[in-house]
Amino acid sequence: MPKKGRKKLAIIVEGGTLDKLYCTFILGSTAAAMDMETHLYFTFWGLNMLAKGAMEKAGLPATYKHLEEQMKRNLAKMKYPTPYEMLKRLKQSGMLKIYACSPSMEMFGIKKENLIPEVDEIAGAATFLEVAADADITLFI
Amino acid sequence: MPKKGRKKLAIIVEGGTLDKLYCTFILGSTAAAMDMETHLYFTFWGLNMLAKGAMEKAGLPATYKHLEEQMKRNLAKMKYPTPYEMLKRLKQSGMLKIYACSPSMEMFGIKKENLIPEVDEIAGAATFLEVAADADITLFI
Amino acid sequence: MPKKGRKKLAIIVEGGTLDKLYCTFILGSTAAAMDMETHLYFTFWGLNMLAKGAMEKAGLPATYKHLEEQMKRNLAKMKYPTPYEMLKRLKQSGMLKIYACSPSMEMFGIKKENLIPEVDEIAGAATFLEVAADADITLFI
Repeated sequence: MPKKGRKKLAIIVEGGTLDKLYCTFILGSTAAAMDMETHLYFTFWGLNMLAKGAMEKAGLPATYKHLEEQMKRNLAKMKYPTPYEMLKRLKQSGMLKIYACSPSMEMFGIKKENLIPEVDEIAGAATFLEVAADADITLFI
Repeated sequence: MPKKGRKKLAIIVEGGTLDKLYCTFILGSTAAAMDMETHLYFTFWGLNMLAKGAMEKAGLPATYKHLEEQMKRNLAKMKYPTPYEMLKRLKQSGMLKIYACSPSMEMFGIKKENLIPEVDEIAGAATFLEVAADADITLFI
Repeated sequence: MPKKGRKKLAIIVEGGTLDKLYCTFILGSTAAAMDMETHLYFTFWGLNMLAKGAMEKAGLPATYKHLEEQMKRNLAKMKYPTPYEMLKRLKQSGMLKIYACSPSMEMFGIKKENLIPEVDEIAGAATFLEVAADADITLFI
Protein backbone atom coordinates (compact mmCIF):
# COMPACT_ATOMS: atom_id res chain seq x y z
CA MET A 1 0.00 0.00 0.00
CA PRO A 2 -0.57 2.36 -1.72
CA LYS A 3 -1.24 0.30 -4.84
CA LYS A 4 -2.20 2.08 -8.01
CA GLY A 5 -5.80 1.63 -9.08
CA ARG A 6 -7.02 0.56 -5.66
CA LYS A 7 -10.08 2.42 -4.42
CA LYS A 8 -9.63 4.61 -1.36
CA LEU A 9 -11.75 5.44 1.68
CA ALA A 10 -10.59 8.59 3.51
CA ILE A 11 -12.04 9.43 6.91
CA ILE A 12 -11.46 12.33 9.28
CA VAL A 13 -12.05 10.80 12.70
CA GLU A 14 -13.03 13.72 14.90
CA GLY A 15 -15.22 11.76 17.31
CA GLY A 16 -13.72 9.94 20.25
CA THR A 17 -16.69 7.92 21.47
CA LEU A 18 -17.25 4.19 21.24
CA ASP A 19 -19.96 4.46 18.58
CA LYS A 20 -17.80 6.61 16.29
CA LEU A 21 -14.79 4.34 16.75
CA TYR A 22 -16.83 1.25 15.88
CA CYS A 23 -18.25 2.95 12.78
CA THR A 24 -14.74 3.87 11.69
CA PHE A 25 -13.19 0.45 12.10
CA ILE A 26 -16.20 -1.49 10.75
CA LEU A 27 -16.05 0.66 7.62
CA GLY A 28 -12.28 0.20 7.42
CA SER A 29 -12.46 -3.57 7.88
CA THR A 30 -15.19 -3.86 5.28
CA ALA A 31 -13.21 -1.71 2.87
CA ALA A 32 -10.11 -3.90 3.36
CA ALA A 33 -12.16 -7.02 2.57
CA MET A 34 -13.16 -5.27 -0.68
CA ASP A 35 -9.48 -4.51 -1.50
CA MET A 36 -10.07 -0.84 -0.75
CA GLU A 37 -7.47 1.19 1.21
CA THR A 38 -8.51 3.12 4.31
CA HIS A 39 -6.81 6.36 5.34
CA LEU A 40 -7.77 7.64 8.78
CA TYR A 41 -6.88 11.13 9.94
CA PHE A 42 -7.46 11.35 13.69
CA THR A 43 -8.13 14.87 14.94
CA PHE A 44 -9.54 16.52 18.07
CA TRP A 45 -11.39 13.92 20.26
CA GLY A 46 -10.37 11.26 17.78
CA LEU A 47 -6.70 12.21 18.18
CA ASN A 48 -7.06 11.79 21.94
CA MET A 49 -8.04 8.17 21.27
CA LEU A 50 -4.61 7.51 19.72
CA ALA A 51 -2.90 8.03 23.08
CA LYS A 52 -1.77 4.72 24.58
CA GLY A 53 -4.55 3.15 26.65
CA ALA A 54 -7.18 5.72 25.67
CA MET A 55 -9.24 3.67 23.21
CA GLU A 56 -9.83 0.98 25.83
CA LYS A 57 -11.61 3.58 27.98
CA ALA A 58 -13.82 5.04 25.24
CA GLY A 59 -17.46 5.42 26.22
CA LEU A 60 -20.70 6.64 24.70
CA PRO A 61 -21.53 10.34 24.15
CA ALA A 62 -23.63 12.22 26.73
CA THR A 63 -26.87 11.68 24.78
CA TYR A 64 -26.54 7.90 25.10
CA LYS A 65 -24.44 7.61 28.29
CA HIS A 66 -27.21 5.69 30.08
CA LEU A 67 -26.87 2.87 27.52
CA GLU A 68 -23.10 2.46 27.94
CA GLU A 69 -23.00 -0.29 30.54
CA GLN A 70 -25.56 -2.41 28.72
CA MET A 71 -23.85 -1.96 25.36
CA LYS A 72 -20.49 -2.97 26.79
CA ARG A 73 -22.06 -6.06 28.35
CA ASN A 74 -23.77 -6.99 25.06
CA LEU A 75 -20.56 -6.53 23.09
CA ALA A 76 -18.65 -8.72 25.55
CA LYS A 77 -21.37 -11.39 25.36
CA MET A 78 -21.19 -11.31 21.54
CA LYS A 79 -17.37 -11.55 21.87
CA TYR A 80 -17.25 -8.48 19.66
CA PRO A 81 -13.68 -7.21 19.19
CA THR A 82 -12.83 -3.90 20.86
CA PRO A 83 -12.07 -0.88 18.67
CA TYR A 84 -8.33 -1.25 19.33
CA GLU A 85 -8.42 -4.95 18.44
CA MET A 86 -10.17 -4.05 15.20
CA LEU A 87 -7.57 -1.35 14.49
CA LYS A 88 -4.71 -3.82 15.01
CA ARG A 89 -6.25 -6.48 12.76
CA LEU A 90 -6.91 -3.91 10.08
CA LYS A 91 -3.33 -2.68 10.35
CA GLN A 92 -2.08 -6.23 9.78
CA SER A 93 -4.08 -6.40 6.55
CA GLY A 94 -1.76 -3.73 5.15
CA MET A 95 -4.77 -1.71 4.00
CA LEU A 96 -4.83 0.93 6.74
CA LYS A 97 -2.86 4.12 7.09
CA ILE A 98 -3.22 6.18 10.27
CA TYR A 99 -2.41 9.89 10.48
CA ALA A 100 -2.27 11.78 13.77
CA CYS A 101 -3.25 15.47 13.49
CA SER A 102 -0.25 17.52 14.60
CA PRO A 103 -2.18 20.71 15.58
CA SER A 104 -4.45 18.58 17.80
CA MET A 105 -1.41 17.04 19.47
CA GLU A 106 -0.15 20.52 20.28
CA MET A 107 -3.58 21.68 21.47
CA PHE A 108 -3.98 18.71 23.84
CA GLY A 109 -0.32 18.40 24.83
CA ILE A 110 0.02 14.86 23.49
CA LYS A 111 3.58 13.83 22.57
CA LYS A 112 4.69 11.42 19.88
CA GLU A 113 5.90 8.89 22.47
CA ASN A 114 2.41 8.77 23.99
CA LEU A 115 0.81 7.57 20.76
CA ILE A 116 0.04 3.92 19.97
CA PRO A 117 2.69 2.37 17.70
CA GLU A 118 0.22 1.80 14.85
CA VAL A 119 0.29 5.51 13.91
CA ASP A 120 2.00 5.84 10.52
CA GLU A 121 2.45 9.56 10.28
CA ILE A 122 2.07 12.75 12.28
CA ALA A 123 0.74 15.29 9.83
CA GLY A 124 -1.17 18.51 9.32
CA ALA A 125 -4.44 18.78 7.46
CA ALA A 126 -2.73 19.44 4.11
CA THR A 127 -1.41 15.89 3.95
CA PHE A 128 -4.87 14.57 4.51
CA LEU A 129 -6.66 16.89 2.08
CA GLU A 130 -4.36 15.62 -0.66
CA VAL A 131 -5.29 12.03 0.15
CA ALA A 132 -8.98 12.93 0.40
CA ALA A 133 -9.08 14.82 -2.91
CA ASP A 134 -7.91 11.61 -4.55
CA ALA A 135 -10.20 9.24 -2.60
CA ASP A 136 -13.40 7.56 -3.79
CA ILE A 137 -15.24 8.11 -0.52
CA THR A 138 -14.54 10.83 2.07
CA LEU A 139 -16.28 11.01 5.40
CA PHE A 140 -16.09 13.06 8.60
CA ILE A 141 -16.95 10.91 11.62
CA MET B 1 -34.48 3.74 -9.72
CA PRO B 2 -31.59 3.19 -10.23
CA LYS B 3 -31.51 5.01 -13.56
CA LYS B 4 -28.25 5.24 -15.41
CA GLY B 5 -26.69 8.66 -15.51
CA ARG B 6 -28.61 9.99 -12.53
CA LYS B 7 -26.48 11.67 -9.88
CA LYS B 8 -26.36 9.97 -6.48
CA LEU B 9 -26.26 11.17 -2.88
CA ALA B 10 -25.09 8.49 -0.43
CA ILE B 11 -25.43 9.08 3.31
CA ILE B 12 -24.47 6.99 6.31
CA VAL B 13 -27.04 7.98 8.93
CA GLU B 14 -25.36 7.24 12.25
CA GLY B 15 -27.15 9.92 14.27
CA GLY B 16 -30.55 9.26 15.75
CA THR B 17 -31.54 12.73 16.92
CA LEU B 18 -34.17 15.05 15.48
CA ASP B 19 -31.63 17.47 14.01
CA LYS B 20 -29.72 14.74 12.18
CA LEU B 21 -32.95 13.17 10.86
CA TYR B 22 -34.17 16.51 9.53
CA CYS B 23 -30.81 17.18 7.85
CA THR B 24 -30.97 13.76 6.22
CA PHE B 25 -34.49 14.04 4.86
CA ILE B 26 -34.21 17.69 3.81
CA LEU B 27 -31.10 16.77 1.81
CA GLY B 28 -32.88 13.72 0.38
CA SER B 29 -36.01 15.68 -0.58
CA THR B 30 -33.94 18.40 -2.20
CA ALA B 31 -31.90 15.82 -4.08
CA ALA B 32 -35.09 14.14 -5.36
CA ALA B 33 -36.38 17.49 -6.64
CA MET B 34 -33.09 17.77 -8.56
CA ASP B 35 -33.57 14.28 -10.04
CA MET B 36 -30.76 12.95 -7.85
CA GLU B 37 -31.12 9.56 -6.11
CA THR B 38 -30.62 9.28 -2.36
CA HIS B 39 -29.21 6.15 -0.72
CA LEU B 40 -29.41 6.08 3.06
CA TYR B 41 -27.54 3.52 5.14
CA PHE B 42 -28.89 3.64 8.70
CA THR B 43 -26.41 2.42 11.30
CA PHE B 44 -26.00 2.61 15.08
CA TRP B 45 -28.34 5.30 16.56
CA GLY B 46 -29.71 5.89 13.09
CA LEU B 47 -30.59 2.20 12.76
CA ASN B 48 -32.51 2.43 16.02
CA MET B 49 -34.68 5.08 14.37
CA LEU B 50 -35.86 2.54 11.76
CA ALA B 51 -37.69 0.53 14.42
CA LYS B 52 -41.46 1.04 14.19
CA GLY B 53 -42.55 4.05 16.24
CA ALA B 54 -39.02 5.18 17.06
CA MET B 55 -38.68 8.15 14.73
CA GLU B 56 -41.78 9.77 16.21
CA LYS B 57 -40.03 9.89 19.59
CA ALA B 58 -36.72 11.34 18.34
CA GLY B 59 -35.42 14.23 20.40
CA LEU B 60 -32.46 16.59 20.45
CA PRO B 61 -28.95 15.57 21.58
CA ALA B 62 -27.82 16.28 25.16
CA THR B 63 -26.06 19.51 24.16
CA TYR B 64 -29.33 21.03 22.95
CA LYS B 65 -31.87 19.10 25.05
CA HIS B 66 -33.09 22.30 26.71
CA LEU B 67 -34.30 23.58 23.30
CA GLU B 68 -36.30 20.46 22.43
CA GLU B 69 -39.75 21.48 23.67
CA GLN B 70 -39.56 24.89 22.02
CA MET B 71 -38.31 23.45 18.73
CA LYS B 72 -41.11 20.90 18.64
CA ARG B 73 -43.66 23.65 19.31
CA ASN B 74 -42.18 25.84 16.55
CA LEU B 75 -42.17 22.97 14.05
CA ALA B 76 -45.82 22.18 14.86
CA LYS B 77 -46.77 25.85 14.48
CA MET B 78 -44.98 25.96 11.09
CA LYS B 79 -46.86 22.72 10.20
CA TYR B 80 -43.44 21.31 9.36
CA PRO B 81 -43.65 17.62 8.39
CA THR B 82 -42.15 15.15 10.87
CA PRO B 83 -39.04 13.18 9.84
CA TYR B 84 -41.13 10.06 9.21
CA GLU B 85 -43.62 12.00 7.07
CA MET B 86 -40.68 13.32 5.05
CA LEU B 87 -39.26 9.83 4.68
CA LYS B 88 -42.60 8.49 3.41
CA ARG B 89 -43.05 11.30 0.86
CA LEU B 90 -39.51 10.84 -0.36
CA LYS B 91 -40.08 7.11 -0.68
CA GLN B 92 -43.11 7.79 -2.87
CA SER B 93 -40.95 9.86 -5.20
CA GLY B 94 -39.12 6.65 -6.10
CA MET B 95 -35.79 8.38 -5.50
CA LEU B 96 -34.94 6.93 -2.08
CA LYS B 97 -33.36 3.65 -1.14
CA ILE B 98 -33.08 2.71 2.54
CA TYR B 99 -30.55 0.20 3.86
CA ALA B 100 -30.65 -1.10 7.43
CA CYS B 101 -27.21 -2.01 8.85
CA SER B 102 -27.30 -5.70 9.74
CA PRO B 103 -24.46 -5.66 12.34
CA SER B 104 -26.27 -2.81 14.16
CA MET B 105 -29.48 -4.85 14.18
CA GLU B 106 -27.61 -7.69 15.83
CA MET B 107 -25.88 -5.36 18.30
CA PHE B 108 -29.17 -3.77 19.40
CA GLY B 109 -31.34 -6.89 19.11
CA ILE B 110 -33.64 -5.36 16.48
CA LYS B 111 -35.45 -7.88 14.28
CA LYS B 112 -36.55 -7.47 10.68
CA GLU B 113 -40.22 -7.50 11.68
CA ASN B 114 -39.64 -4.52 13.99
CA LEU B 115 -38.45 -2.29 11.14
CA ILE B 116 -40.67 0.21 9.31
CA PRO B 117 -41.90 -1.17 5.97
CA GLU B 118 -40.04 1.49 3.95
CA VAL B 119 -36.70 -0.30 4.49
CA ASP B 120 -35.54 -1.68 1.12
CA GLU B 121 -32.65 -3.85 2.17
CA ILE B 122 -30.91 -5.23 5.23
CA ALA B 123 -27.23 -5.12 4.40
CA GLY B 124 -23.70 -4.98 5.71
CA ALA B 125 -21.31 -2.11 5.11
CA ALA B 126 -19.93 -3.66 1.90
CA THR B 127 -23.19 -3.08 0.05
CA PHE B 128 -23.10 0.53 1.06
CA LEU B 129 -19.43 1.15 0.30
CA GLU B 130 -20.07 -0.01 -3.26
CA VAL B 131 -22.92 2.47 -3.62
CA ALA B 132 -20.87 5.23 -2.00
CA ALA B 133 -17.80 4.66 -4.19
CA ASP B 134 -20.02 5.34 -7.17
CA ALA B 135 -21.89 8.32 -5.67
CA ASP B 136 -21.39 12.02 -6.44
CA ILE B 137 -21.75 13.09 -2.82
CA THR B 138 -21.08 10.97 0.27
CA LEU B 139 -21.79 12.14 3.80
CA PHE B 140 -21.74 10.73 7.33
CA ILE B 141 -24.49 12.29 9.42
CA MET C 1 -13.26 32.72 -7.08
CA PRO C 2 -14.64 30.52 -8.55
CA LYS C 3 -11.67 29.81 -10.82
CA LYS C 4 -11.94 27.00 -13.30
CA GLY C 5 -9.80 23.98 -12.54
CA ARG C 6 -9.38 24.78 -8.86
CA LYS C 7 -10.11 21.91 -6.50
CA LYS C 8 -13.09 22.35 -4.19
CA LEU C 9 -13.84 21.41 -0.60
CA ALA C 10 -17.57 21.48 0.23
CA ILE C 11 -18.70 21.21 3.85
CA ILE C 12 -22.14 21.14 5.43
CA VAL C 13 -21.55 22.70 8.85
CA GLU C 14 -24.34 21.33 11.02
CA GLY C 15 -22.46 21.44 14.31
CA GLY C 16 -22.31 24.60 16.35
CA THR C 17 -19.72 23.71 18.96
CA LEU C 18 -16.17 24.98 19.32
CA ASP C 19 -14.58 21.71 18.19
CA LYS C 20 -16.65 21.51 15.02
CA LEU C 21 -16.00 25.18 14.19
CA TYR C 22 -12.23 24.74 14.62
CA CYS C 23 -12.27 21.63 12.42
CA THR C 24 -14.16 23.55 9.75
CA PHE C 25 -11.91 26.57 9.67
CA ILE C 26 -8.64 24.66 10.02
CA LEU C 27 -9.68 22.53 7.02
CA GLY C 28 -10.71 25.68 5.12
CA SER C 29 -7.48 27.54 5.91
CA THR C 30 -5.40 24.54 4.91
CA ALA C 31 -7.38 24.17 1.69
CA ALA C 32 -6.84 27.85 0.85
CA ALA C 33 -3.08 27.45 1.35
CA MET C 34 -3.28 24.62 -1.19
CA ASP C 35 -5.16 26.85 -3.67
CA MET C 36 -8.34 24.87 -3.04
CA GLU C 37 -11.69 26.68 -2.67
CA THR C 38 -13.86 26.09 0.41
CA HIS C 39 -17.65 26.24 0.28
CA LEU C 40 -19.38 26.15 3.66
CA TYR C 41 -23.11 25.61 3.99
CA PHE C 42 -24.14 26.43 7.56
CA THR C 43 -27.31 24.67 8.70
CA PHE C 44 -29.07 23.91 11.98
CA TRP C 45 -26.69 24.53 14.96
CA GLY C 46 -24.08 25.72 12.51
CA LEU C 47 -26.48 28.29 11.08
CA ASN C 48 -27.04 29.61 14.60
CA MET C 49 -23.31 30.33 14.75
CA LEU C 50 -23.65 32.80 11.85
CA ALA C 51 -25.74 35.16 13.97
CA LYS C 52 -23.74 38.21 15.04
CA GLY C 53 -21.86 37.54 18.27
CA ALA C 54 -22.77 33.85 18.43
CA MET C 55 -19.47 32.31 17.38
CA GLU C 56 -17.65 34.12 20.18
CA LYS C 57 -19.83 32.25 22.69
CA ALA C 58 -19.43 28.77 21.18
CA GLY C 59 -18.59 26.08 23.71
CA LEU C 60 -17.93 22.35 23.78
CA PRO C 61 -20.66 19.70 23.38
CA ALA C 62 -22.22 18.09 26.49
CA THR C 63 -19.89 15.07 26.31
CA TYR C 64 -16.82 17.29 26.74
CA LYS C 65 -18.32 20.26 28.60
CA HIS C 66 -16.07 19.65 31.61
CA LEU C 67 -13.01 20.35 29.43
CA GLU C 68 -14.27 23.68 28.08
CA GLU C 69 -12.65 26.07 30.52
CA GLN C 70 -9.28 24.40 30.29
CA MET C 71 -9.39 24.27 26.50
CA LYS C 72 -10.24 27.95 26.27
CA ARG C 73 -7.36 28.79 28.64
CA ASN C 74 -4.94 26.66 26.58
CA LEU C 75 -6.04 28.24 23.32
CA ALA C 76 -5.60 31.72 24.77
CA LYS C 77 -2.15 30.81 26.09
CA MET C 78 -1.19 29.48 22.63
CA LYS C 79 -2.60 32.73 21.16
CA TYR C 80 -4.68 30.52 18.91
CA PRO C 81 -7.06 32.56 16.74
CA THR C 82 -10.77 32.25 17.57
CA PRO C 83 -13.08 30.56 15.04
CA TYR C 84 -14.43 33.94 13.92
CA GLU C 85 -10.92 35.34 13.47
CA MET C 86 -10.09 32.30 11.35
CA LEU C 87 -13.26 32.79 9.30
CA LYS C 88 -12.40 36.44 8.63
CA ARG C 89 -8.81 35.68 7.57
CA LEU C 90 -10.02 32.91 5.31
CA LYS C 91 -12.61 35.25 3.78
CA GLN C 92 -9.83 37.74 2.99
CA SER C 93 -7.98 35.04 1.08
CA GLY C 94 -10.83 35.05 -1.44
CA MET C 95 -11.04 31.27 -1.21
CA LEU C 96 -14.11 30.96 1.02
CA LYS C 97 -17.78 31.12 0.15
CA ILE C 98 -20.34 31.02 2.98
CA TYR C 99 -23.95 29.93 2.49
CA ALA C 100 -26.61 30.36 5.18
CA CYS C 101 -29.35 27.70 5.09
CA SER C 102 -32.66 29.50 4.53
CA PRO C 103 -34.95 26.80 6.03
CA SER C 104 -32.82 26.85 9.21
CA MET C 105 -33.17 30.65 9.39
CA GLU C 106 -36.94 30.27 9.26
CA MET C 107 -36.93 27.42 11.80
CA PHE C 108 -34.84 29.43 14.30
CA GLY C 109 -36.32 32.85 13.51
CA ILE C 110 -32.98 34.31 12.43
CA LYS C 111 -33.24 37.30 10.07
CA LYS C 112 -30.80 38.32 7.36
CA GLU C 113 -29.83 41.48 9.28
CA ASN C 114 -28.77 39.35 12.26
CA LEU C 115 -26.15 37.45 10.25
CA ILE C 116 -22.44 38.31 10.20
CA PRO C 117 -21.49 40.32 7.09
CA GLU C 118 -19.20 37.57 5.77
CA VAL C 119 -22.19 35.49 4.61
CA ASP C 120 -22.18 35.41 0.81
CA GLU C 121 -25.54 33.87 0.08
CA ILE C 122 -28.75 32.77 1.78
CA ALA C 123 -29.73 29.58 0.03
CA GLY C 124 -31.64 26.32 0.22
CA ALA C 125 -30.02 22.91 0.08
CA ALA C 126 -30.33 22.69 -3.73
CA THR C 127 -27.71 25.39 -4.22
CA PHE C 128 -25.34 23.49 -2.01
CA LEU C 129 -25.96 20.05 -3.49
CA GLU C 130 -24.99 21.47 -6.88
CA VAL C 131 -21.72 22.77 -5.46
CA ALA C 132 -21.09 19.52 -3.59
CA ALA C 133 -21.76 17.28 -6.61
CA ASP C 134 -18.96 19.14 -8.35
CA ALA C 135 -16.54 19.20 -5.37
CA ASP C 136 -13.47 17.04 -4.82
CA ILE C 137 -14.15 16.54 -1.13
CA THR C 138 -17.54 16.73 0.62
CA LEU C 139 -17.97 16.52 4.36
CA PHE C 140 -20.74 16.88 6.93
CA ILE C 141 -19.39 18.35 10.15
